[in-house]
Amino acid sequence: MDGPLVYFGRARGERADAARNRARLLQVAREMIAEDGAERVTMDGLAERSGLGKGTVFRRFGTRAGIFLALLDDDERALQQRVLTGPPPLGPGADPVQRLIAFGRERIAFLLDHHAIARAALDLGQPVPGGVRSLAGIHIRMLLGAARAAGRLDAVDLDSLALQLTAALEGPLLLYVTTAEPGHRAARTPEPLAESWQMLIERLFSPTA
Amino acid sequence: MDGPLVYFGRARGERADAARNRARLLQVAREMIAEDGAERVTMDGLAERSGLGKGTVFRRFGTRAGIFLALLDDDERALQQRVLTGPPPLGPGADPVQRLIAFGRERIAFLLDHHAIARAALDLGQPVPGGVRSLAGIHIRMLLGAARAAGRLDAVDLDSLALQLTAALEGPLLLYVTTAEPGHRAARTPEPLAESWQMLIERLFSPTA
Repeated sequence: MDGPLVYFGRARGERADAARNRARLLQVAREMIAEDGAERVTMDGLAERSGLGKGTVFRRFGTRAGIFLALLDDDERALQQRVLTGPPPLGPGADPVQRLIAFGRERIAFLLDHHAIARAALDLGQPVPGGVRSLAGIHIRMLLGAARAAGRLDAVDLDSLALQLTAALEGPLLLYVTTAEPGHRAARTPEPLAESWQMLIERLFSPTA
Repeated sequence: MDGPLVYFGRARGERADAARNRARLLQVAREMIAEDGAERVTMDGLAERSGLGKGTVFRRFGTRAGIFLALLDDDERALQQRVLTGPPPLGPGADPVQRLIAFGRERIAFLLDHHAIARAALDLGQPVPGGVRSLAGIHIRMLLGAARAAGRLDAVDLDSLALQLTAALEGPLLLYVTTAEPGHRAARTPEPLAESWQMLIERLFSPTA
């Protein structure tokens, strides 16, 4: 058993023209980011270039940050598909501990790749993303459950452990995205974080001497 | 070697009357929180009850959230003193792994105790708190260094590991403070998180079979 098939259970009752507009706007936003960088994308610019009215853009995204949230969401769905149906160890079929390691590595690379978009998606009025209801939080909790079912974890509260591991995975990237303090060298290339994540998970599940 | 003696190296060139006003305002804010709860504290109310001008309150704290940040800061200094000069295992002298466990337990209890203040201190315009420059981040990094010096950690990037462990410790509480989603049972009492933290640290440092 690998858990529920769909992590994001959002209703998709979008009308066809609304869906078309959304796809069009995201496509244009990606072009604008590729050409001029995320910081140059504006609601007005997006409306103009896409040939859609400003009202459509505002209704669809609400705020400028909403554009980037929608882009992140789109790309997260692609990662989610690989997690749900792709080849192991990211996808189903591998040992849960190996899946935890693989997922962490993919997620770190994903967040670093999406750094500019994630930064732009952080709206001041939004709650902090990356909670336990996120893709990472739900997936990690599921894999911990699978590991326990296989006799791999002592009596510990899996919800607490899942919260801590999700934060360990997402927190450093979120911090990098929100502050980019000098000193966060470690967050700029995936490898040190990915190695550290792997060691943490391997030791968590190692038989102790 | 237990690292630098002062983690927060802030200049303290405050004039005597400014320091007195600050202490007075924090004292009054604590009384107001105790009587009516954090959500009832306002800049105007604080100015009125403290008998100081509104201008003084605004200059001192900037925003309403600034009041709560100052309160948190004050209480964090008290925790910091216990970490720096208190009895082991929280204070110096104990094994670094035992200090990591003790610090995590204290910090979890501290953040849950300060939940209402921390929530009020989260200003929309502020960066996400709890970074590597925080008390927790600096202390964890120092203890990891001490553990490595004692031959307790393989080759892994200690900055990355410190970021991840700091996020694991602070993230679940920050999440609870920012959202208080109904599913976050685990964050409401310290024990499950404290147990999970202890297991994570113990296994990280266990000799593997």
